[in-house]
Amino acid sequence: MNVHTPATFAAEPLAPDELRLMQAWWRAANYLSVGQVYLLANPMLREPLTMAHVKPRLLGHFGTTPGLNFIYVHLNRLIKARDLSMLFIAGPGHGAPGVVASTYMEGTYSELYPEVAQDENGMCKLFRQFSFPGGIPSHAAPQTPGSIHEGGELGYSLAHAYGAVLDNPGLIAACVVGDGEAETGPLAAAWHSNKFINPATDGAVLPILHLNGFKIANPTVLARISHSELESLLVGYGHTPIFVEGDDPALMHQAMAAALDTAIAAIHELQDAARLGRAHGRPRWPMIVLRSPKGWSGPKTVDGLKTEGSWRSHQVPISDMGKPGHLQALEDWMRSYKPDELFDETGRLHAEIAALAPVGDRRMSANPHANGGALMRALHMPDFTTHAVAVVHPGGTDGEATAVMGGFLRDVMRLNAETRNFRVLGPDETASNRLQALFEATGRDWDAATVADDDEHLSPDGRVMEILSEHTCQGWLEGYLLTGRHGLFSCYEAFIHIVDSMVNQHAKWLKTSREVEWRRPIASLNYLLTSHVWRQDHNGSSHQDPGFMDHVATKKADIVRIYLPPDANTLLWVTDHCLRSWDRINVIVAGKQPEPQWLDMDAAIKHCERGLGIWEWASNDRGGAPDLVMACAGDVPTLECLAAVDLLRQYAPDLKVRVINVVDLMTLQSKSQHPHGLPEADFDALFTIDAPVIFAFHGYPALIHRLIYNRANSHNFHVHGFQDEGTTTTPFDMVVLNKLDRFHLVIDAIDRVPHLSADRAYAKQAIRDKLVEHWRYIGQHGIDMPEVLNWRWPAAHEIRS
Amino acid sequence: MNVHTPATFAAEPLAPDELRLMQAWWRAANYLSVGQVYLLANPMLREPLTMAHVKPRLLGHFGTTPGLNFIYVHLNRLIKARDLSMLFIAGPGHGAPGVVASTYMEGTYSELYPEVAQDENGMCKLFRQFSFPGGIPSHAAPQTPGSIHEGGELGYSLAHAYGAVLDNPGLIAACVVGDGEAETGPLAAAWHSNKFINPATDGAVLPILHLNGFKIANPTVLARISHSELESLLVGYGHTPIFVEGDDPALMHQAMAAALDTAIAAIHELQDAARLGRAHGRPRWPMIVLRSPKGWSGPKTVDGLKTEGSWRSHQVPISDMGKPGHLQALEDWMRSYKPDELFDETGRLHAEIAALAPVGDRRMSANPHANGGALMRALHMPDFTTHAVAVVHPGGTDGEATAVMGGFLRDVMRLNAETRNFRVLGPDETASNRLQALFEATGRDWDAATVADDDEHLSPDGRVMEILSEHTCQGWLEGYLLTGRHGLFSCYEAFIHIVDSMVNQHAKWLKTSREVEWRRPIASLNYLLTSHVWRQDHNGSSHQDPGFMDHVATKKADIVRIYLPPDANTLLWVTDHCLRSWDRINVIVAGKQPEPQWLDMDAAIKHCERGLGIWEWASNDRGGAPDLVMACAGDVPTLECLAAVDLLRQYAPDLKVRVINVVDLMTLQSKSQHPHGLPEADFDALFTIDAPVIFAFHGYPALIHRLIYNRANSHNFHVHGFQDEGTTTTPFDMVVLNKLDRFHLVIDAIDRVPHLSADRAYAKQAIRDKLVEHWRYIGQHGIDMPEVLNWRWPAAHEIRS
Repeated sequence: MNVHTPATFAAEPLAPDELRLMQAWWRAANYLSVGQVYLLANPMLREPLTMAHVKPRLLGHFGTTPGLNFIYVHLNRLIKARDLSMLFIAGPGHGAPGVVASTYMEGTYSELYPEVAQDENGMCKLFRQFSFPGGIPSHAAPQTPGSIHEGGELGYSLAHAYGAVLDNPGLIAACVVGDGEAETGPLAAAWHSNKFINPATDGAVLPILHLNGFKIANPTVLARISHSELESLLVGYGHTPIFVEGDDPALMHQAMAAALDTAIAAIHELQDAARLGRAHGRPRWPMIVLRSPKGWSGPKTVDGLKTEGSWRSHQVPISDMGKPGHLQALEDWMRSYKPDELFDETGRLHAEIAALAPVGDRRMSANPHANGGALMRALHMPDFTTHAVAVVHPGGTDGEATAVMGGFLRDVMRLNAETRNFRVLGPDETASNRLQALFEATGRDWDAATVADDDEHLSPDGRVMEILSEHTCQGWLEGYLLTGRHGLFSCYEAFIHIVDSMVNQHAKWLKTSREVEWRRPIASLNYLLTSHVWRQDHNGSSHQDPGFMDHVATKKADIVRIYLPPDANTLLWVTDHCLRSWDRINVIVAGKQPEPQWLDMDAAIKHCERGLGIWEWASNDRGGAPDLVMACAGDVPTLECLAAVDLLRQYAPDLKVRVINVVDLMTLQSKSQHPHGLPEADFDALFTIDAPVIFAFHGYPALIHRLIYNRANSHNFHVHGFQDEGTTTTPFDMVVLNKLDRFHLVIDAIDRVPHLSADRAYAKQAIRDKLVEHWRYIGQHGIDMPEVLNWRWPAAHEIRS
Repeated sequence: MNVHTPATFAAEPLAPDELRLMQAWWRAANYLSVGQVYLLANPMLREPLTMAHVKPRLLGHFGTTPGLNFIYVHLNRLIKARDLSMLFIAGPGHGAPGVVASTYMEGTYSELYPEVAQDENGMCKLFRQFSFPGGIPSHAAPQTPGSIHEGGELGYSLAHAYGAVLDNPGLIAACVVGDGEAETGPLAAAWHSNKFINPATDGAVLPILHLNGFKIANPTVLARISHSELESLLVGYGHTPIFVEGDDPALMHQAMAAALDTAIAAIHELQDAARLGRAHGRPRWPMIVLRSPKGWSGPKTVDGLKTEGSWRSHQVPISDMGKPGHLQALEDWMRSYKPDELFDETGRLHAEIAALAPVGDRRMSANPHANGGALMRALHMPDFTTHAVAVVHPGGTDGEATAVMGGFLRDVMRLNAETRNFRVLGPDETASNRLQALFEATGRDWDAATVADDDEHLSPDGRVMEILSEHTCQGWLEGYLLTGRHGLFSCYEAFIHIVDSMVNQHAKWLKTSREVEWRRPIASLNYLLTSHVWRQDHNGSSHQDPGFMDHVATKKADIVRIYLPPDANTLLWVTDHCLRSWDRINVIVAGKQPEPQWLDMDAAIKHCERGLGIWEWASNDRGGAPDLVMACAGDVPTLECLAAVDLLRQYAPDLKVRVINVVDLMTLQSKSQHPHGLPEADFDALFTIDAPVIFAFHGYPALIHRLIYNRANSHNFHVHGFQDEGTTTTPFDMVVLNKLDRFHLVIDAIDRVPHLSADRAYAKQAIRDKLVEHWRYIGQHGIDMPEVLNWRWPAAHEIRS
């Protein structure tokens, strides 16, 4: 194991020449940033600026940019001095002009985009393309070298940074947190991530809280509390803050260099202690607070109003180029950086400045972890079929689907223990979700205090990560995936909505990444949603919501998959499938309660490979045209659907019923709308073009209607699902409240079939009597009636069909 | 103004008798809590417990409950001693057995639910109903007296508390924050709410951080950092924490009483200072940290495993009553509270214990603010028509819709300045969203430091609330509405997804509240979503998402309204309408950019009252059957739709086109599915039963398909909307990327009309040429081509039709 050599400390660590060059780098980065916001042509200001040189639309965020540039050059100094592997995570990713400028000055940009060369012509392209149609976006998007974090929606930088350094002991993620972003909930929660970092086996995060004081139009909270209050807060988060405050670049360069020297020495000391077994207790990690003016080095005033050091420099400090004096003010501003001193006559950065950058992979813009797909290794996958639940007769065996999945995940964890590239995350619900077999293979990640008698499975080396923040779990996992590893997020179904917006942003990242040639595919974002809407009767209404499926179904078709395995063996296939996939968002909805198991492993594999299909053993249409299709998706709807079919056999024995189960929800969409969509002919062959379809669905009925709206038989689909009715009651009452139960399904079926041979009125009354009996029984006993609890699919039906 | 009299302080403030009675109250509350979880019968343990007395399903959360009960009795002491108006906000609302027990002991429960009387029979009902079918839910739901916070989904208690005390100077919200909840992002962000409280005109929040150490299966972060680290954190949040730690009830009672005496004295001192003009700077508010065992007073061990003080007591400490010894252990546990000493022979709480409760409205369970609808006064509404934009000719005037709305909101603010019951909230976007006219009437709420040169409109008395946390804004507004006031949340459209899950919970609260007889309707939750998907071309992909409409559309129909006013005058009508409504979630999507105005005020009123309708001036079907319906919803789609109609007039002049604009999206649904749904006959009369409908929609096309799926003409709807294509580009290119632009609409129209008289091929080629010209032009100039920028609806069309 490498032990780091101690750093030398100095209050003013920069020699005059080094200071001069770093200031030159900063000027150059600022110049290139301003150029990107403003210029179409004349990038080196060879001639006086005219309106023809200026973009007709001025877009971009300058306010945060000089701070990002300042941090970047200082991190580069540190990387070179200590040979570090470092990621740059720009919380204020809308300061992309700065991030792009730095990556261009490091040469990476031109390597990846040769047309943006390091000469005047390339500089012109660099300027023009920014926020320009057909060019690059205004945030640190997937197109930006070295970025794993766009920063358009604020709040996730710190969780991403922590996710990136897990199991990467040699990596340091320098994470710039804007003081605007710091007001968000997800960011505020993520500070406590430092209790989940193992200094021996994980890398380190160096948070750099950048207080530039303002948001779009307001001061920031953290910039307007007292120094001591802020210090208390950060100490309370578990950090040792080092403050760098001021506006004089020369003084600030010395202070920042000294602060970073101190910080990196502290990080290395903590890591060395842990790695040599000398550590005692949780480390107190260093962090930097950089208080510098917003729009630093920009115009002091514009139209007589304070601009540098004000919210007025948030976006484009000098806008409306038609106004008298504005064009000249822009030229003066740009020339204040003295571009002629920074770039040679070809437009290339002077070599002595360029030499400040690290080389090769040590450049933050070329750090391999930022293009995680290139590092990704496929998981070693155990044979999922060895976990198969024996199902001799459909419905004849009970099983807990997620508990079976837990055994499989335990084996995945074991097989990949050495490569250390798989983690399971969840908000304190791993055991509740019945995945506790995982704890046979690993512990719960925890680096805070432990109490011997009270705690179970806690370990600084645990690979199950639990914190009661869905945001933090999601952010960690995204950071972990984006740096080339694998994972699964298990969550109560209702509360996964908490990360709706993060899912949006990740989906957007995946979509754009696919269009960026040099980005390699990363492992899919896998969700297990359990403790689902139909089995949260004990927690009540607040815990009942299946709408996450609706949310993800709005995303780009090729990104999203939704699976509703009806039992344990289908869940095994789906889990195996998802863990092998890439660049997707896979949503698996499955139950954790003991439930009948329907398919043996062979049947499960065949069924899942198709994604949906007729369950012949439950159907009695014998290959002919059915009078009725009973369809189902989801474990509880499948149970109710089959119980309804059983009742139909009793009350309408001549009715020809076809039973279809759907595992892969996206098969319902047209082929033109989703790659998994069933071709029209196949869909019509399954669901017919004229028979009524009673569809028992796990989620909101409208989702099915929108998926099938242009199918031939769509008008005949009658979907039963969640209708936002729920409370603390019994499991069966939950389905009754929403008319998803067997009795309502049968009544609907009877009403929809045109020519029912049996006595329709009699059958309906008999079924209604059962509903009344249900209400009476639960009101009296508080549990479901035996007829419901004890129902099993009769073996006789199977033989008969 | 009342000045509070100083409190007397003592380290052990409780006289022996008071201590004895408070301990008795606590025992009684705990007894009643356990009874609710376990018993169906034999509530007073008149006979030895048998299985017949015990519920067949044991549901509930005991772990947090004794702590809630302990806090409750101490708050009651304080209320009585100082005649306080106090709200009890139980962050761990799943500790409802405790909340319900206390409200029952105060008598409120029996007043609202007379069948649950204060006698043995009533106690039996109290026990039985809990988490029982047909009974009450297991959380502090709307059915719970005194509750404005269910606490099922964790994270929002503190923001709710702050929202409740705004403009309620006499109110104190005691907010219990569980240490599990404290890990969530929304809670972590909400601590900084104290920078937005004006001690002169707002009430106070007293946070009580309850460290019981464990979540479902894990320790909590805040319970496992050092005392000094935790103290630093809370000081950093701006509080003076007072610690109450231990497990001996007698000592803890004295410590808690002393802590609350100190806290209330500090609150009153801060308020008095501010109200007498003696205040200097932002107050440092007190708070309590209560560290007590989870499952306090419960069984020490169960089956040999530590239970009191462990995560094992999170839900039901002794479960599985069939196990040997469990029934006896339950009986022993319940008898340990000595119920015979607490309740008389009728089952009524002994008078000397009951006398600890405040009386009447001073009971937290009967505080009028907790049934805010009963206090709510309608807003004084100015005449919105005075803000009308003059529209002599459709499309002949340009206007910024939200800026016009801002003027109206300013007048609402002024008219209600004295009643102080209206606030506008947003994450730093009020000015960005063009509502800056509000600052003529009020400022931005801000109680942290200010800097004279840098700040605009900041004031401790401001009624516009801005913090860069959508969660905090949403939580504040919910708390404000639930206590009987009014408000509007303005937000970037894409980022409102951040509060998806909070919206779910509020929708559930509203739905259930309507079923609770004594709950009065509250003002609607109003959203203005602007800076919307079609005008975030400068920010790029991360800022582009119209999916919040899809999310709210899944909610109960009677709760949700979605409005897409196409211009300023329709936006005025919609805003006025929403601010007058109650018990709804109103989503208004409107643009902030200069855009053509279509309807004068009279036409706007008529159009909005119907919710949708034919724009005769843009149609040329002259009352006959149209060849084609061009429909639109949203400002940008309306513009593109009309521009497409203009092109159709040029290229297919004989085509009979009907133009329909939809303001109230819910009119598209069936009457059976939504109260605003258009009857089938009216829908068919508008959209025909056979003509192709080209629908230009603001959001995802699938939303329209799911709303109209069972309409007669649904197969002929061809919806153009957002397809998740977006980047930093020009405004018109955004619609082109998603095929929502005039050119794609025309091409689709030409393809869909069976018998187009003009030369179809010629027209399509001409339009395709225009698309090519668009791409060429923006690539060269970076702005949209003049044909697009300068297009206006030709007055000639209007005269002609």
